[in-house]
Amino acid sequence: MASAVLFDLDDTLYDSTKQVSLARENAVTKMIEQGLHCSQKNALAVLDEIASVKGSNYPHHFDDLVEIFGKPFSYDIVASGVIAYHETKRKYMKPFPKLKKTIIQLRKKGYLVGVVSDGIPTKQWEKLIRLGLTDFFDCVVIAEKKSYQKPSPIPFEYAAKNLGVPAGECVVVGDRVDKDILGAHNAGMQAIQLLQGRHSKIKPEKIGETPDYIISDICDVAGVIEGLD
Amino acid sequence: MASAVLFDLDDTLYDSTKQVSLARENAVTKMIEQGLHCSQKNALAVLDEIASVKGSNYPHHFDDLVEIFGKPFSYDIVASGVIAYHETKRKYMKPFPKLKKTIIQLRKKGYLVGVVSDGIPTKQWEKLIRLGLTDFFDCVVIAEKKSYQKPSPIPFEYAAKNLGVPAGECVVVGDRVDKDILGAHNAGMQAIQLLQGRHSKIKPEKIGETPDYIISDICDVAGVIEGLD
Repeated sequence: MASAVLFDLDDTLYDSTKQVSLARENAVTKMIEQGLHCSQKNALAVLDEIASVKGSNYPHHFDDLVEIFGKPFSYDIVASGVIAYHETKRKYMKPFPKLKKTIIQLRKKGYLVGVVSDGIPTKQWEKLIRLGLTDFFDCVVIAEKKSYQKPSPIPFEYAAKNLGVPAGECVVVGDRVDKDILGAHNAGMQAIQLLQGRHSKIKPEKIGETPDYIISDICDVAGVIEGLD
Repeated sequence: MASAVLFDLDDTLYDSTKQVSLARENAVTKMIEQGLHCSQKNALAVLDEIASVKGSNYPHHFDDLVEIFGKPFSYDIVASGVIAYHETKRKYMKPFPKLKKTIIQLRKKGYLVGVVSDGIPTKQWEKLIRLGLTDFFDCVVIAEKKSYQKPSPIPFEYAAKNLGVPAGECVVVGDRVDKDILGAHNAGMQAIQLLQGRHSKIKPEKIGETPDYIISDICDVAGVIEGLD
């Protein structure tokens, strides 16, 4: 029996892979317009590399890019990239089309609904507010400390405790086998993988963990949960 | 004879005092709506105090505010403040009404026009881009290193050199006697004080420095400059 559904945030509530990819494309286009000497393709490849090495919360991706291609270094090129990046992210901050409907449906049927995400709490809450989703969840758990992050069972157990339900009655929905699915199983919860975003392309066999269910559209969550009961 | 006019950025090209004040008001309103337990007046007073002690580029103003008033600490309150603050700043990022016209007029009469500002270069360039002013200036100098910042003559001398004119032929326009006027004089330049924003309220006598001209509207710059020749 399921009592609660715990959603991951990035690439589960909204298409963060597409959002970031569009934002990087627009940033690079503006930077080239502003005088960065390289092709769109090369700039994007280097930017992806910088982001993958330094992490998504590193604040100087565009400085590094200009450092590589923009001799002499010019801050106006950095600034034009930063603006285009943030403006694009702001505009494309939208929940998956049927997400709100799905959550309302789950709530109507009596399920508790939560969010379990890793990241910087203020940044993750900013996303929930910009997505217009803050009123949709009974609890939100953001694990900032590395040792508490997925696939640790800790944030999932914390959410279950907060909702007042046993871990065995929680179902986790997320895109990452290495984080959401493994973490859910570590906490004794069932796990649905949503095939959305770049991380969902990693084969489950590579992680050695198998999702209990696989869906390709967030609206399929409701059907899977009902099937469990 | 004047050949070049060097403008300060904040509170000279746009009303940054009003912009920040509106942004803080809207941030605090949203935070109280989200559950911060205090009056608008108290929250604003504490926020002003935090900003004045920690500086405007400190990234955790709203965390500190919630730390003081928001027991138990909640990140959703911080995030709602951050969003309202940035959305307001974005909307109120507009040049003073007659600024563009004034610069075009100066350029038409053959004067070179530059910006000399202190701050983080990417952030200051972001402002110029968002203000739609990047094409209006022949040179932009942003002094990041404390020892090069106003009232040091260095950024002014650097701008003059960059424009290829003697310091004695540059006129500086800025709101701060302690930075712009004193710095201009240190560089051997004439200085016009614009009475805009909170810093312009500091009495020149307190600094021991007197502006060569005082104006209350940016469009008066053209008249003063023409009067010099």
